[in-house]
Amino acid sequence: MKEELIREELGERLDDLQCEALFLIQNPTKFCFGIDAVLLANFVKVKRGGHAVDLCTGSGIVPVLLSAKTQAKKITGIEIQEDIAEMANRSVKYNSLEEKIDIINDDIANALKYIKHSSVDTVSVNPPYMKDTTAIKNPDLPLAIARHELLTDLDKVVEIAGKLLKENGKFFMIHRPSRLSEIFAALKKNRIEPKRMRFVHPYMESKANLVLIEGVKGSGVWLDVEPPLAVYKDKNIYTDEVLKIYGR
Amino acid sequence: MKEELIREELGERLDDLQCEALFLIQNPTKFCFGIDAVLLANFVKVKRGGHAVDLCTGSGIVPVLLSAKTQAKKITGIEIQEDIAEMANRSVKYNSLEEKIDIINDDIANALKYIKHSSVDTVSVNPPYMKDTTAIKNPDLPLAIARHELLTDLDKVVEIAGKLLKENGKFFMIHRPSRLSEIFAALKKNRIEPKRMRFVHPYMESKANLVLIEGVKGSGVWLDVEPPLAVYKDKNIYTDEVLKIYGR
Repeated sequence: MKEELIREELGERLDDLQCEALFLIQNPTKFCFGIDAVLLANFVKVKRGGHAVDLCTGSGIVPVLLSAKTQAKKITGIEIQEDIAEMANRSVKYNSLEEKIDIINDDIANALKYIKHSSVDTVSVNPPYMKDTTAIKNPDLPLAIARHELLTDLDKVVEIAGKLLKENGKFFMIHRPSRLSEIFAALKKNRIEPKRMRFVHPYMESKANLVLIEGVKGSGVWLDVEPPLAVYKDKNIYTDEVLKIYGR
Repeated sequence: MKEELIREELGERLDDLQCEALFLIQNPTKFCFGIDAVLLANFVKVKRGGHAVDLCTGSGIVPVLLSAKTQAKKITGIEIQEDIAEMANRSVKYNSLEEKIDIINDDIANALKYIKHSSVDTVSVNPPYMKDTTAIKNPDLPLAIARHELLTDLDKVVEIAGKLLKENGKFFMIHRPSRLSEIFAALKKNRIEPKRMRFVHPYMESKANLVLIEGVKGSGVWLDVEPPLAVYKDKNIYTDEVLKIYGR
């Protein structure tokens, strides 16, 4: 019985992803994916038959969506938290995606133990955004780990991506615009050239609060900044584009 | 007679800047300012009583607009082309701004001969955008010099800005988004931290073709990406914000 894969006694629930009959097991007492992961999965490109690696994969939302949205042959998700990785594995089973998606439970710093250097076509990541980790009261909580750079950081994420990617392999990340100068510096250091960016604004009249970035390992200099994406057109009313991304 | 300042026999004309009764002498046979300079002048901040330097000042459009839009005490424009700098000087006289605006006719690489190191509050620049200079047929033409990196380049512009600026002094530039990774690298190299960016899109649904950047010398990391600016709302119809910037 598929339903046995959901541990309701732990507070888990099953969410319909509104995308090719895919579902995801989530635990709201720990962390639920936000719009960030959905926007990222929509932004990522994987070449037909390619191998994609999703760092900091959490509940596995990005690999599960990429299995439907791309022609990837293989998708590997890496998640450091044991219980979250185990839950992601159950989501893979629930969707019968075991042949396509692998979830590895380890620190992304150890990714090269599992995946060959310069072998990957696409690396995606929705990393923890926040740098300040000193004032955090419960640094072991999944929510703190997902949001703050407690167990990994921007430099490590980009360094690992740079090692995993083939020459001309693609890197996709969603992050905070406030950290863009650090992002550009990290990309440069690891020979990933930013090629495409899209800023996400809560409303078209507000500052950007997210940025989607595509980089290419070893590429020449040229960056496209795509039309801005607004999330809401009015209070609690999504724009048509966001509704479309959510599959509604 | 003020009108004697305009050399009609050379093809010069007088343009009303629609801003506090200011005018600018331009020569359409050489180069006329575009929306870039107007957007830049509108983006620049100078503290009350401060000293602003405009690199690659051309016809002097940015200094003349800043004299009205800011409380700067002193504005220095630097222009390498002798005839253009001379024309800019006549615009300064036409507007009776000789006490506020100085035009220096020299390579910006020599700026430190005229202005003390680490003494300037604001540096602004609308530099040549294009890198490819090999295929240019007339590299001496003012239009080629204004658009292509023939006589200066991004690295030089940012290096000079970094030398002129006081600690915490502000740098303002308009450039092409396609070169953003080079811009960030140049800023980092010269200790200017990007703090504010605004992307300009011909239409809200098109890629950005300009970016306004504010950096602060020696500042900490934090970048705001402002709401996008669209130039047109329909074919040949400016958006309300652009009309306002143009003073209409």
